This record gives sequence, C-alpha cells and structure tokens, in this order.
Amino acid sequence: MTHLVTYDEAPARVRAVFDDILATRKTDYINDLWKALANDPATLERTWERVKTIMGQPGALDPVVRELIYIAVSVTNNCEYCIATHTASASAKGMTAEMFAELMAIIGLANETNRLAIGYRVQVDERYR
Amino acid sequence: MTHLVTYDEAPARVRAVFDDILATRKTDYINDLWKALANDPATLERTWERVKTIMGQPGALDPVVRELIYIAVSVTNNCEYCIATHTASASAKGMTAEMFAELMAIIGLANETNRLAIGYRVQVDERYR
Amino acid sequence: MTHLVTYDEAPARVRAVFDDILATRKTDYINDLWKALANDPATLERTWERVKTIMGQPGALDPVVRELIYIAVSVTNNCEYCIATHTASASAKGMTAEMFAELMAIIGLANETNRLAIGYRVQVDERYR
Amino acid sequence: MTHLVTYDEAPARVRAVFDDILATRKTDYINDLWKALANDPATLERTWERVKTIMGQPGALDPVVRELIYIAVSVTNNCEYCIATHTASASAKGMTAEMFAELMAIIGLANETNRLAIGYRVQVDERYR
Amino acid sequence: MTHLVTYDEAPARVRAVFDDILATRKTDYINDLWKALANDPATLERTWERVKTIMGQPGALDPVVRELIYIAVSVTNNCEYCIATHTASASAKGMTAEMFAELMAIIGLANETNRLAIGYRVQVDERYR
Amino acid sequence: MTHLVTYDEAPARVRAVFDDILATRKTDYINDLWKALANDPATLERTWERVKTIMGQPGALDPVVRELIYIAVSVTNNCEYCIATHTASASAKGMTAEMFAELMAIIGLANETNRLAIGYRVQVDERYR
Repeated sequence: MTHLVTYDEAPARVRAVFDDILATRKTDYINDLWKALANDPATLERTWERVKTIMGQPGALDPVVRELIYIAVSVTNNCEYCIATHTASASAKGMTAEMFAELMAIIGLANETNRLAIGYRVQVDERYR
Repeated sequence: MTHLVTYDEAPARVRAVFDDILATRKTDYINDLWKALANDPATLERTWERVKTIMGQPGALDPVVRELIYIAVSVTNNCEYCIATHTASASAKGMTAEMFAELMAIIGLANETNRLAIGYRVQVDERYR
Repeated sequence: MTHLVTYDEAPARVRAVFDDILATRKTDYINDLWKALANDPATLERTWERVKTIMGQPGALDPVVRELIYIAVSVTNNCEYCIATHTASASAKGMTAEMFAELMAIIGLANETNRLAIGYRVQVDERYR
Repeated sequence: MTHLVTYDEAPARVRAVFDDILATRKTDYINDLWKALANDPATLERTWERVKTIMGQPGALDPVVRELIYIAVSVTNNCEYCIATHTASASAKGMTAEMFAELMAIIGLANETNRLAIGYRVQVDERYR
Repeated sequence: MTHLVTYDEAPARVRAVFDDILATRKTDYINDLWKALANDPATLERTWERVKTIMGQPGALDPVVRELIYIAVSVTNNCEYCIATHTASASAKGMTAEMFAELMAIIGLANETNRLAIGYRVQVDERYR
Repeated sequence: MTHLVTYDEAPARVRAVFDDILATRKTDYINDLWKALANDPATLERTWERVKTIMGQPGALDPVVRELIYIAVSVTNNCEYCIATHTASASAKGMTAEMFAELMAIIGLANETNRLAIGYRVQVDERYR
C-alpha cells in the first residue's frame, strides 16, 4: 500500500489542500485517500479542486443526489474504498435507509438490463438516436 | 441482431406485457428492447415487472433521480442502448440540461477517483469499515 | 479501423495460420478478427493456437458450453464483435433458442447480484474462504 | 459493512424467504448475502425469487453449466463474494477440478480476445450482423 | 447524439478553450469530443486544462508513452471514440506499427491474467503488500 | 482461496516452468499466482510462455513501459494482485516515483474522459474512422 502522508510531515503545498479539506468539510479528519494522493501534490490539488467543485458547489442537483450518483459508479466499478467513504458521506448528507435500499435496487437492475440490451444486440431505436 | 417481435405476431403472454407497458407509460410506442426480450416471454415478464416497480413505484427517490442513477450505471458500463433510451426518459421526467451536465461531470469524476483509490492501493479507513 | 489482411496479400507465416483455421473449422471463410490480427503475425499465431486448444480440444466441457462461457464474458465486457461471432459459433455447435434465453437470463442475474454483493459490502462467509 | 439480519431478529416477511432458501437448498445455512439483503425485504424477495428460478428450475441448461456461466460473469466483474460462493455451489453440483481449470482458461482467453477485437477496432463481419 | 457546438456559435468562454486547443496542438481541427463538451463550458474548461497538462506538459514520461497508457485504459473500457482518436494521436507522436502491435499484445495479456488472478482467488504475496 | 502448489510437491511439468521462471527472472522466489496456476499445468505453461515473451523479449517497447501499460489495465480492471505485483516489477525495472505519479494521473484522466465521450454519445470523427 502507498505511504500515507500525515499532516505533520506534509510540505506546505500539501498542507494547504489538507487545510482546505478540513475547513470545507468542517471536520478534523482527513480521509486516507487524500494522504495517499499527497505523494503527488499536483494530483492532490487537481483532484480535491474538482471534488470540491463538482460534489459541493451549488447547482442543479442536490448534494445527496450527487452522492447517490457517485455510489452508483463506484459499485459498478467495484471500488471498495469509494463505496465505503461515499456511503458514509451520503448518510451524513441525508441519505436514509430507504433511499439506500432503492439506490441498490436501481444499480442492480441497471447492471442487469445493460447486459440484456447488449446480449440481445438491440440497436438504438430510430427515435432515440 | 435479435429478431424484434412485433405486437401483431406476439403471443397473448407477450401482448399482456406490451399492453401493460403502453398503459403504464401512457404511450403508443414499445421500445425495441422489449420487442427483443419478447423472444423469451419469461425474461420479458420478469424484467418489465422489475423496471415498472423499481423505476416507477412511489418511494424515497424522485423518478428523475432514479433515471440519473440508471444513466450513471449505463455510462460506466458503456451500454449505448441504455444511455440513449434512459437519457430520453430522464428528460421526459424533468431532467434539465444543467442536471445532465452535472450528472456527466460526477460520472467522469467518480470514474477517475475510483481508479486513483485503486491504483494507490488505499485501504478503507478504520472509521468507514 | 485496422487494415484487414487478405489471404492473397498475406505472407507465408500468416497463410499458415489461415490455412489451419480453414482446415480446423472446415470452412472457407476467415473471420475479420483474424485478418486484423494478421497485421502482427506473432499475436495471430499465439491467439489462434490458444483459441484452437482452449475452445476446441477434447476436455471436460462440451464445445457448446465453452461457447456459452465465452459469450457470458463478452456480454459482460460489451464486446460487440465477440458476441456476434460467438453467438453464431454457439448456434453452429448446437445452442438452441431455449439455451440462449437461459444464458441471457443468467448473465443478467449475475451482473445484478454481483453489484448487490458489492454495494452491500458483504464479506465472504467464513466457510467459503 | 452492512448489518447482517439474523433469523432470530428477522420480521416474518424475511423469515419466509429464509425458510424457502433453507428448504429449497436442503441446508441449515443462510449465506451472508441474503442476511445483508434482508435489510430491504423487497429486494430480498425479488432477488431470491429470480435466483431460485433462473439458477434452479428445470430448463435447457444443466445446473452446473448455469453455475459456470455465473462464475464467468463474476470473475469478469471481479466480485469476490460471488466467485467464492458460486465456486462452492458449482463444486457441490458436480464441477470437477478439470472443469474449473477449463472454465478459468476460457474466461482468461475471452477477456484477452475481447480486448484484441476492441483494440484492433474490428467491425462485425457482414455475415454475423 | 449530443449537439456539437461549432466555433461560430460558441460563446466567448468556449471559444477561448477552442483557441487554446488549436494553438497548443498546432492544428486547425477541433475534435468532436470538445464540441460536445462545449455544451457545458465548465466541464470543457476543466477537461481541456487537465488533458493539456497531464498528456502534454514536460515530465517523466515520453509523450508517446502517455498515449500508450491512455489507449490501454480506453481499450479495457471499450471506448471506441477514445481508441480511435488516441491511436491517431499516438501515431502522430511517433508510435510505430511494431509499438502498436506490442501494446495490443500487452493489453490482451493483462486482461487475461487479471482474470486468472481474480478467478483463482490469489491473495497478494506478503512481500508485495 | 486456491491451493498454492509448492515446488516440493510439484510434478515435473510444473517444476520445469518454475525453474524457467526462477532462471529468467534471476530470483529465488515464485509469485503465488504461478503456484495457483500450477493446479492446471497447461494454463501455467501457456501463461508463463506468453508473459515471458510479451513482457520480456526484446522489442519496440522498453521493459518499464510494458509494465506501465500492464498496470494501466490492472487498475482499470481493479485487479489488486496484479497491481501489487506489477508495481513491484515496474519499480525493479526502473519506474521512479515521478513516473508512477504521472501514470496514475493518466489512468485517472483516461477513465474520466472515456465516460465523458460515452455519456455525451460522441461518434468518431470522420477523419479518425
């Protein structure tokens, strides 16, 4: 496993990102993913900047809906780390047990019907092209 | 490509599903996926029953949110048919251009960060297990 | 798209593989995949050698069962070329419409339950480790 | 990880499914996946119903062949839980070490040739469309 | 398919990105992906900024090696658009037919051995953890 | 997990492969993947033969570049075993921390842009077909 860069050993460029994560999320905990990405400050900065904006800035989608979409991708890709941490974020932002159950049912259904459409070799209907 | 079973040639068991699709969706058009699945009436029935329930029945998630989740899975799996038809359904149920743009940005981000977590071999933080 | 190497323009090393394909399969048609791989004779040889052995030599699994497994992988990966050609081979080797329908149902089911197990984060039971 | 619902704490609706699993499989053990799905009785019921039917009812494919197909999907998707439990089921239904070895060789081959077809951008031959 | 935003109809924010693409790549052609992303100027800007930096700025990896890595991901994900355009870029940057052939062989091999490791359920050796 | 065949219990056919691995790699350690594949000598032989040739023989690509491509596939497929062992091989063959950081950034980027191209349903530009 990658070395996890702690706050104490982090160079100033990394600390600036860590500080922004702590302030933005109003927490005193940095997830291990950020400590791993800190081995490459450029990727750390770019990734945090985009997560902060795409998942957090005001927009057309609710914060909890964004997390549901994120989880749908992560389950389909089987990223255990991402599922665990974003399930926690989604709950913190208001995902209920009922919402989680429906989310899982839709993810399962879509993964199934995707393969039925592919296996039966169905071409896109003229009207949806 | 699979033969598409038309309404006229369909046996009664298939027509019953087609009729339910038309009535439930208040449309006069049957998507080609259903006509392909009609080659196997048992799969047609089971799939429609679940799509109708999971995507359509009242629940904790908005109908348009369900479509966004469905699209997130379909894009990650690269199912062209599913992306085309569910983008159309999502629009019909109220997805705006802004919502679609945010959806795509989240799908792209999650597919990227999934691989960063996997490639850097980050284990799930103790607190999220 | 990759240039397709025809029999007439093929060097001797490629022709030897083409001849073996024609003889082994008792056909007078070379699938386009082989004509594409012929751009790299080493990959052509290695791939044909393994397809010939793994899909064709006597063993514990029926030839049609091997094709069903091959299709299951190809549908899950969404390889249109592979689905189209191996569905044809499977039919030629005895796959009936009923077998195809069951195959599709299992592929759909497995793709769904895979994601339920992953999304619910279920660990392998002690007894199955 | 999701809370696993035990038989003792399960509501009647969940117990009915658990009882059917035990009776159908002639076992006294409920796999953890079912205990996890029990958090959402509707998904538990729908999933078990389909697994019971698609994997178990008489049909054109042998029970062990169905398990091989299921494993092929699960390995391609990298679902550790599904691989572990269905390898056990397949063995219980008659999969020999030789069959498992051939299964793995075919899964490996198909995953390779899928990418060769995709990377070389080979279009489906006219005759297989 | 998404509407492709042409240079003439593009707002100033989009034209700025298009101009930078044309100048950076020393070309007079904008790929259709950028015209599609132009429907969402924020995603267009962020994506181009990262492609420009990650694929183009001086660093430890050769420009052509970066393209090979990009193609390896795109083939594994089966993104036809990405394979076609990045195969063209790789060739423009110096990828020879021999390099392409080796690239394809490695992609095929890795996709195969990935599934063998997964299907045989091999745990990471102590020394590689 | 699969039984790992040790050198001492291995039949002559397996020992021949183990000996070749040890000699070719100038090491006294056999990775667990080979010990697992040894349960099926035919797959062990075929796989080692191809790994030895494709990853090791002189050719147009640098040995370290081949490893980078291999890692790109393995991260995209989420094969933990393959990522861990090939990251170690890549380092042994000269991959620096800077190269690894750039590799990860490219893998992340490609996985993101693959999904943008797919989700926006962009067709391949005429000139790249």
